[in-house]
Amino acid sequence: MESKVGTKPPHHVVIVGGGFGGLYTAKALRSKDINVTLIDKRNFHLFQPLLYQVATGTLSPADISSPLRSVLSKSKNTKVLLGEVTDIHPEKQCVLMGDEKIPYDSLIVATGAKHSYFGKDEWEEFAPGLKTVEDAIEMRRRIFMAFEAAEKETDEEKRRALLTFVVVGGGPTGVELAGAIAELAFNILKEDFRNIDTHEAQVMLLEGMDRVLPPFAPELSVKAEESLQKLGVTVVTKTFVTGIEGDIVTIKQGEETKQFAAKTILWGAGVKASSLGKVIAEKTGAECDRAGRVIVEPDLSLKGYPNIYVIGDLAHYAHQTGKPLPGVAPVAMQEGEYVAKSIKQQLKGNTLPAFKYVDKGSLAVIGQHAAVVDLGFMKLTGFIAWLFWLLVHIYYLVEFDNKLVVMIQWVWNYFTSNRGARLITEKDNYVSVEANSKSDYYPPVNSNGAVNV
Amino acid sequence: MESKVGTKPPHHVVIVGGGFGGLYTAKALRSKDINVTLIDKRNFHLFQPLLYQVATGTLSPADISSPLRSVLSKSKNTKVLLGEVTDIHPEKQCVLMGDEKIPYDSLIVATGAKHSYFGKDEWEEFAPGLKTVEDAIEMRRRIFMAFEAAEKETDEEKRRALLTFVVVGGGPTGVELAGAIAELAFNILKEDFRNIDTHEAQVMLLEGMDRVLPPFAPELSVKAEESLQKLGVTVVTKTFVTGIEGDIVTIKQGEETKQFAAKTILWGAGVKASSLGKVIAEKTGAECDRAGRVIVEPDLSLKGYPNIYVIGDLAHYAHQTGKPLPGVAPVAMQEGEYVAKSIKQQLKGNTLPAFKYVDKGSLAVIGQHAAVVDLGFMKLTGFIAWLFWLLVHIYYLVEFDNKLVVMIQWVWNYFTSNRGARLITEKDNYVSVEANSKSDYYPPVNSNGAVNV
Repeated sequence: MESKVGTKPPHHVVIVGGGFGGLYTAKALRSKDINVTLIDKRNFHLFQPLLYQVATGTLSPADISSPLRSVLSKSKNTKVLLGEVTDIHPEKQCVLMGDEKIPYDSLIVATGAKHSYFGKDEWEEFAPGLKTVEDAIEMRRRIFMAFEAAEKETDEEKRRALLTFVVVGGGPTGVELAGAIAELAFNILKEDFRNIDTHEAQVMLLEGMDRVLPPFAPELSVKAEESLQKLGVTVVTKTFVTGIEGDIVTIKQGEETKQFAAKTILWGAGVKASSLGKVIAEKTGAECDRAGRVIVEPDLSLKGYPNIYVIGDLAHYAHQTGKPLPGVAPVAMQEGEYVAKSIKQQLKGNTLPAFKYVDKGSLAVIGQHAAVVDLGFMKLTGFIAWLFWLLVHIYYLVEFDNKLVVMIQWVWNYFTSNRGARLITEKDNYVSVEANSKSDYYPPVNSNGAVNV
Repeated sequence: MESKVGTKPPHHVVIVGGGFGGLYTAKALRSKDINVTLIDKRNFHLFQPLLYQVATGTLSPADISSPLRSVLSKSKNTKVLLGEVTDIHPEKQCVLMGDEKIPYDSLIVATGAKHSYFGKDEWEEFAPGLKTVEDAIEMRRRIFMAFEAAEKETDEEKRRALLTFVVVGGGPTGVELAGAIAELAFNILKEDFRNIDTHEAQVMLLEGMDRVLPPFAPELSVKAEESLQKLGVTVVTKTFVTGIEGDIVTIKQGEETKQFAAKTILWGAGVKASSLGKVIAEKTGAECDRAGRVIVEPDLSLKGYPNIYVIGDLAHYAHQTGKPLPGVAPVAMQEGEYVAKSIKQQLKGNTLPAFKYVDKGSLAVIGQHAAVVDLGFMKLTGFIAWLFWLLVHIYYLVEFDNKLVVMIQWVWNYFTSNRGARLITEKDNYVSVEANSKSDYYPPVNSNGAVNV
């Protein structure tokens, strides 16, 4: 973007992270006077709320992903770079992406959260979580592989372990996963096997609190548990996982400790801030909470650095209610739009009042026929809640062809009880090319530089 | 399947491979008197002709895959097992899958073909081919990664290498790939980048013969080359690749040798038989051709073993014209249906005449607006050929929801010049679980065998 001679160069905003927070900020920053650079480790925006459907074979990754360049291609003031930001230099006002320094006038960090295994990182190998496309594909592989292996297994005890699925964590992710796996086992796949009866499968949902969906209203937790049980899920509350080793899960209920074998263990129990949070804290003196989230000011900026903002799952914002806002998509979206508006207003000399989150409600779905919806003034359950859940998610999916494809897939699945995307894809053995790996992008010097033949 | 006391057990047919050959055999073998076991390394049937569209970001893998169990779930006489057959014992009439021996009355081997690098297997790392879903995802990753890297690259020579794409092999696969990449570079992605002008990209198609699509009629080769050039592809014939090392491609044109740098090299130039072909030859004394394909009798069985059949890309069948039938889907489909019919007839005491392939024609598509269709009595080119190509592929896609989703994706892409499935997905670092790896399916012995908590 060229400046006219003598005029000030446009205000340069750098956004790190293309999730709900970063993408909504970028979209709200379309302006002639602002240049935007969006940096993400991936080339697409991922609609995480539907990731569990990729893990259980209903949707393909592309159905819930939108190439960032494509979404922003009409924003001529916006550049997208594929890379990983590993450091920030607040005094020099630049970030480090690989070897490159990217200068900024305003910086927005929205790199989100990752799994937390409460210090037991060694559990990750046995109990994958669900934050990225690769997570979902790996979960999918393990789920469907378990049925395939059970079909060939002659030993009864081993087969039982293969047909035991454990989901750890009774929040929305765990509830949605457990419901979907139960539907697979007890409905979708029941005609597909000859040696096993998929009804023999056991799908367990383990939750440490006394009810599932702890952040929801208590009556909705009751409804959710009923719906889960109706689907065939064994809901076990007041239970903590104290060990995961290979296929053996160790749990603690009150004073009792138990163990059992489960081939497929899925983690939906904890998140912590992405590692850039710690870097920010070190470089700016900002404080972090126990989960590593960066504590921000009422305008979402950092204390002492009014031009650095942290939003989304990475931010700890408690000024509104005393409790930090939850790590959900609507919070990130609203924070992103607020920061964009704030920057634009500041360029005109104005300031916005403190950020105020408008909580439009919470949703969680259970299988294909039920959901719980908490709109505050109104609560919905059952089939009507499920329709509501569908419409909201379709509405917020970015990119129209995604909406269309997902709608069709859902309608099809509903009427045929089928799952179209249940591939087991293997890991390949090609050389890995990381976003910042220097050696891959610099071809060796050759004698003939010309390409024409 | 239980037999009544005193009656003969049903004839057991084992089919190895769930591609076009194996799947069409299984579908044609629905019968009360026959039990079928279909064994495949993957849990889905892959519609290979559209794999290049996964590689270039138009379709998702699930759009062109059908879970085998789902396709065959209504065939109650058919069992599907996920596994790899590594050996056959013709005298004992059984196959070895992992540690398990699977007995058969009739055996059909349809394990297809894999890439051939003409003895230079070390080229595979630098120039991936296109046979599996993972191949397509890796190709996709490299193609889109090249544009992303070019966007960040400041050195002009390196950027040029990053924007150079080479497709080796001018058969249908190479032509389709080159056309699709050219469309990406010169049409679809042109608004998405700010630092690079994707028009600077160079897309080259290298072919050893004197024209592309050598098996097609000469006038169609001419049309195809024109369409490719219109799309912006640089077609280079009478050129052989003699070296691929990192990003440097060495080619030979007549007496001249040249080298140039290309970050993305894609292989569509050669196939050879899957390894089970060699095993069959050793165990039965059957002969193989130079590409490792097993030479079969006029009824597709092996000499001396009338109950072992080889079909599809793995078979060398030359009884009809003196030249072996090509490794294309319609040949595999017809051979599969023939063998199924043959087995059913033999159970009634009848024999079928020799297999006769009905060649309905050949197709190759170039981009989104052109194709060449050779129906023998009639040839089509241009837009009308492209519509024909679309309809044929939709028709043959297994599973109705795949047809619907693919149709919608194509219509959408056509009118918006967009590519919905262009994710760059990374390789994860989970422990690999192979279909036959024993350690993963047998959980360690635990003290408490019970699962109930």
